[in-house]
Amino acid sequence: MGEFDAIGRIRALAEQAAGNSLLSLGIGDDCCLLDCPGGELLALSTDTMVEGVHFSTRYFSWRDAAGRACAAAISDLAAMAAEPVCMLAAATVPKTGGEKILDELAEGFLEAASLWNCPLAGGDLASTTGPVTLTITVAGRCAPAAALRRSGASPGDEIWITGECGDPSAAIELLERAGAECGSALQNLPENVQNSLFRPTPRLREAAELLELGPPTAMIDVSDGVAADTGHILEESGCGAVLERKALPAGEFSRRRAEDCGLPAEHYFLHGGEDFQLLFTLRSGKLEQTGRELNCGTRITRIGRITAETGKLLIENSDGTLEPLERSGFDHLA
Amino acid sequence: MGEFDAIGRIRALAEQAAGNSLLSLGIGDDCCLLDCPGGELLALSTDTMVEGVHFSTRYFSWRDAAGRACAAAISDLAAMAAEPVCMLAAATVPKTGGEKILDELAEGFLEAASLWNCPLAGGDLASTTGPVTLTITVAGRCAPAAALRRSGASPGDEIWITGECGDPSAAIELLERAGAECGSALQNLPENVQNSLFRPTPRLREAAELLELGPPTAMIDVSDGVAADTGHILEESGCGAVLERKALPAGEFSRRRAEDCGLPAEHYFLHGGEDFQLLFTLRSGKLEQTGRELNCGTRITRIGRITAETGKLLIENSDGTLEPLERSGFDHLA
Repeated sequence: MGEFDAIGRIRALAEQAAGNSLLSLGIGDDCCLLDCPGGELLALSTDTMVEGVHFSTRYFSWRDAAGRACAAAISDLAAMAAEPVCMLAAATVPKTGGEKILDELAEGFLEAASLWNCPLAGGDLASTTGPVTLTITVAGRCAPAAALRRSGASPGDEIWITGECGDPSAAIELLERAGAECGSALQNLPENVQNSLFRPTPRLREAAELLELGPPTAMIDVSDGVAADTGHILEESGCGAVLERKALPAGEFSRRRAEDCGLPAEHYFLHGGEDFQLLFTLRSGKLEQTGRELNCGTRITRIGRITAETGKLLIENSDGTLEPLERSGFDHLA
Repeated sequence: MGEFDAIGRIRALAEQAAGNSLLSLGIGDDCCLLDCPGGELLALSTDTMVEGVHFSTRYFSWRDAAGRACAAAISDLAAMAAEPVCMLAAATVPKTGGEKILDELAEGFLEAASLWNCPLAGGDLASTTGPVTLTITVAGRCAPAAALRRSGASPGDEIWITGECGDPSAAIELLERAGAECGSALQNLPENVQNSLFRPTPRLREAAELLELGPPTAMIDVSDGVAADTGHILEESGCGAVLERKALPAGEFSRRRAEDCGLPAEHYFLHGGEDFQLLFTLRSGKLEQTGRELNCGTRITRIGRITAETGKLLIENSDGTLEPLERSGFDHLA
């Protein structure tokens, strides 16, 4: 039981129900896809962030929280290789002080809209007696051949990832544990880690470049941790995977933090999440190297391979031994 | 200051920012509109409902609350005369008991999806320490000439409305005041009032028929009360209006309730909201009668006229005297 079971039940019921002639892909991917009459696809995705669950106001400004909520939604467009068209922002705020919070949230929404060329086109506002809740819906466009789903991976495909993962979740863990010392812990965070946490970058340029380079057979953005998100590709593609421990590009900060906590160096890479990187699969041999730099400056790294063992996720240690890899990510209902 | 000022500030900033070539209408109407490459328009709208603010679980089941949230969002499509394509449902639920709540919400989402031919195509789920929050985003399609905006009314146009207004808000007021006696108050509500509250109908068929009949020059759905929503048309169209008190089709229940409370009989009609009716303007003389039944069985009624006095909203009493009409609707930040 938990979040993913609940969503699975809803998905099964939704799939039994009548569709719509324009709806080309429903529940189960980073976005749903609509067939536009002119031949393009429109991708839609919605993403909710709750104060105290997804972000703490002890170290997030309202502006940064709003920007992060937008980036998370736009990251879902990147995961389908869709180009942003517009966003809608729904917020619940307390009656008292709500107007000031809203003004700061709006700064973050509008900054993100401008950064990612995704104009704010609507939204809704309500008062709440509970935490601030931000729900961002994004629309993006893509050519029919280009939409990258989670379901296209086949045995033998290579698993690749953009950039590094782990630093944002390691930083959150450190800030949460710092309690009253949160302020000084924050100041001591390296600048690149602060940026990855407070000013994350949806990988739109990378996605566009990967379309040319590959295209990938499947793609997802890393929001639940690489292990859980690889698991999502396996479920949708009906296959298995082996990740190579020594190949995993875990952020330097997350490696140090994991070691300080007595955890494997790749802990936050595998199980952290909130990374805004793209995890994708390529036909074997499409790229000769095991890593390269994209034209936009982001490094991509080969981290594993797709296998025929449906649903089986393994990790290969440096000595060549294989062990099962726990897929656990954050479960809102666990 | 309040909700509408805050939204006005955000809208002004959003309009200064760069747009997107596909975004044909941004903040300020029931939906935003995207130009699809093939010539159709796609309408998008998002709508949030908060437990304890928009609905009380003392008299709303989770299923009915979910259905009402969907109907509210789909009503925004009806207000643009758009046909539903799909919806995304985002929910925040408590960790404890959240799975059961989610299953009941899902029943409501899927029932609405089936009723209004608007398949559930995605969403998001998060835990919260506060009230349950439901944010429904809907996508709909319309022909470019058909999208009915709030901004097209001109002096001399007639103001019309579908059905009756007032009963749902009068019922909510009664149930809220009933306190511990809420259960028996609920049982005593006439069936048509219960239906308007728990099983509201977005006016999709009416909107489609009005396109043929008119088309209307402007349209909005009644969510903030007829006075406030007429005000929204006046702001966007840059004109004024006179509503005729004796012509207002206030629901029988709402008239009785208003009189019991010592209020004018049209109080809930004008200031209640949550009605899911369509308020629209027609060129003068388009219809000869002052009321008629549409083919779908819903009555439409002429309730006033658009004037050249920008921003001025008046009500004409039975004796022909005019008085200013307070536009107040629910303000989340007031």
